Amino acid sequence: MAVFSVGVSDHMMIAHSLRGETFGPAQRLHGATYEVRIELRATELDADGIVADIGALRDALRETLAPLEYRNLDELPEFKTRNSTTEVLCEHIHRQLSRRLVAIRGAGLEVTLVESPVAWASYRGPLSP
Amino acid sequence: MAVFSVGVSDHMMIAHSLRGETFGPAQRLHGATYEVRIELRATELDADGIVADIGALRDALRETLAPLEYRNLDELPEFKTRNSTTEVLCEHIHRQLSRRLVAIRGAGLEVTLVESPVAWASYRGPLSP
Amino acid sequence: MAVFSVGVSDHMMIAHSLRGETFGPAQRLHGATYEVRIELRATELDADGIVADIGALRDALRETLAPLEYRNLDELPEFKTRNSTTEVLCEHIHRQLSRRLVAIRGAGLEVTLVESPVAWASYRGPLSP
Amino acid sequence: MAVFSVGVSDHMMIAHSLRGETFGPAQRLHGATYEVRIELRATELDADGIVADIGALRDALRETLAPLEYRNLDELPEFKTRNSTTEVLCEHIHRQLSRRLVAIRGAGLEVTLVESPVAWASYRGPLSP
Amino acid sequence: MAVFSVGVSDHMMIAHSLRGETFGPAQRLHGATYEVRIELRATELDADGIVADIGALRDALRETLAPLEYRNLDELPEFKTRNSTTEVLCEHIHRQLSRRLVAIRGAGLEVTLVESPVAWASYRGPLSP
Amino acid sequence: MAVFSVGVSDHMMIAHSLRGETFGPAQRLHGATYEVRIELRATELDADGIVADIGALRDALRETLAPLEYRNLDELPEFKTRNSTTEVLCEHIHRQLSRRLVAIRGAGLEVTLVESPVAWASYRGPLSP
Repeated sequence: MAVFSVGVSDHMMIAHSLRGETFGPAQRLHGATYEVRIELRATELDADGIVADIGALRDALRETLAPLEYRNLDELPEFKTRNSTTEVLCEHIHRQLSRRLVAIRGAGLEVTLVESPVAWASYRGPLSP
Repeated sequence: MAVFSVGVSDHMMIAHSLRGETFGPAQRLHGATYEVRIELRATELDADGIVADIGALRDALRETLAPLEYRNLDELPEFKTRNSTTEVLCEHIHRQLSRRLVAIRGAGLEVTLVESPVAWASYRGPLSP
Repeated sequence: MAVFSVGVSDHMMIAHSLRGETFGPAQRLHGATYEVRIELRATELDADGIVADIGALRDALRETLAPLEYRNLDELPEFKTRNSTTEVLCEHIHRQLSRRLVAIRGAGLEVTLVESPVAWASYRGPLSP
Repeated sequence: MAVFSVGVSDHMMIAHSLRGETFGPAQRLHGATYEVRIELRATELDADGIVADIGALRDALRETLAPLEYRNLDELPEFKTRNSTTEVLCEHIHRQLSRRLVAIRGAGLEVTLVESPVAWASYRGPLSP
Repeated sequence: MAVFSVGVSDHMMIAHSLRGETFGPAQRLHGATYEVRIELRATELDADGIVADIGALRDALRETLAPLEYRNLDELPEFKTRNSTTEVLCEHIHRQLSRRLVAIRGAGLEVTLVESPVAWASYRGPLSP
Repeated sequence: MAVFSVGVSDHMMIAHSLRGETFGPAQRLHGATYEVRIELRATELDADGIVADIGALRDALRETLAPLEYRNLDELPEFKTRNSTTEVLCEHIHRQLSRRLVAIRGAGLEVTLVESPVAWASYRGPLSP
């Protein structure tokens, strides 16, 4: 089966801390610049010859990141009961972004956060209903 | 199931315009530098221990891009009836490149075009017969 | 002597052609995605501890690139009598951007345009009066 | 089905030669810097909200690369009977790294080696038992 | 005059806030991943044919970054009276690193911090006595 | 004073060893992929609006790297009496490339070799006579 995808990226800067001995020094309040990369997949192109409009995708991503940007994530309700790890942030952005893409056809969405030159995480799944 | 892949990249510079209100200012004649990345997949390596020869892949990619390079894509027959969007270019290069790889074993081919530091598209599918 | 600098980047997509045998196939109408990187230098920081505000620099750069973006540069008066080479575009953006930075202290400005994964050009000089 | 992944990277510098006419000048003794990128996949996160600890992954990768680093691979027993191509090195690192990750849950592991700005290879498969 | 340079990079993740209306939303507690790039310059090479040992430089840089890493910079004495802007951090790291390089010949040192895919700052000057 | 520059890049893969205790494990035969970046500077543009033709620069760089590529540098006469460190290679390439650029105006030339994701060196000076 053939698959098309279209991807766009943006970035955000946040503070947070991580609970659990696993995290060592990252249990202290620190922060990160995340490059956020999203890919939307589809098995067919629309009449214009695209999976989705890049400008619309970038706007939807920007709106999704806005409530997180320049924030201490420890203070947000979403991250009171679970750690705002890179993996959890990928899933959170995937769910929030899916809601903004309801009008857009697409068989799947992958969200990748690059947290440093040597580490990243991603979450991919169907567009949440 | 395990999968090997080998990838090479090249680039090309083209002019084009895109028909349809969706494209906003990109309806005007403009252009792009595309970094073109291809990945060939196989479930087994050959007797030399490779999926395919990198040099042969780079040559095949170069020959595939040559008819597009330094061109106004609006003037090419292939793009008279459909837009030369990044997605469509991925599929076009996939089909043209497949023909040059008939002697090469491979379970699948992915073509990715990076059009700017924040946008890209790809097409993956079996090697066209 | 010690020197501080602050840099920001953006990008634009344009079409153009280059006059002169030197340019070979680039004499044909084609295009480019330019990653545009600017660096502003100063020998001292201001009271806030910065050379200049990154947000203000990014806005000034965006406004400078807007009249070029998604254009065929061959049709602009600035490039009727000289080629819109990467070097010439660097100088053009340097001059236009200098005018938008008159309120900003700075000992020098460098503008770099990356035109492909293997080629770039730059122009550096004092902020034009 | 949804999939999480976490990735880390490192690098190593080695010498080797490749047997077979296919390899042209690479039959001579030469070398490479490989950027080594690994991705571990899982369908669920653990109680800490991660696929695996990035620090533990980076340590396991470092230990896996140590016996190869600053070596002439032609002299290692593993590569006496088969070429140390980029693809073969991906599979070798995948197998060695899998053994170090036995305590880590994960549905799959992908190892990618970037050998130059224009060429790379990868191997993905289940964590070897 | 001819100049040699040698460069190495590392990275760190920190939290901080910036005082002053100029900084807009960055007045809130947030954070950053900084890629830290240093370049040491010299007009001549030593008897080994190097400006300085890359391993020694990377160790000196690592030790310099350790007291900042995974910290809220707002709590450090150095940044009580001035903002921990990217420019100020460059100068701070330059001064701390200079002390660790007293045994190393070098005509100058440049420290660059990349804070996002679209913004960076640097400080260059003589090795502090 | 204002300065223009134009830059191009290429890469090569070599084997070598380094003499001297400073180099630790790099005293063993190993290898590297070097991304080779060159920048030519000039205070004025020529009649075509360029510092130098990118195609001509890339060809000159390719010819300069050819005698080194896929070689064990330990066997070349140039590196019998001095180490083929990254710094020494920068100067060597600068001298060889200068000879190929005699017909090209230019106030200076910088050669940078990136040896890994975290280390690089450079040499800049006037075009050798």
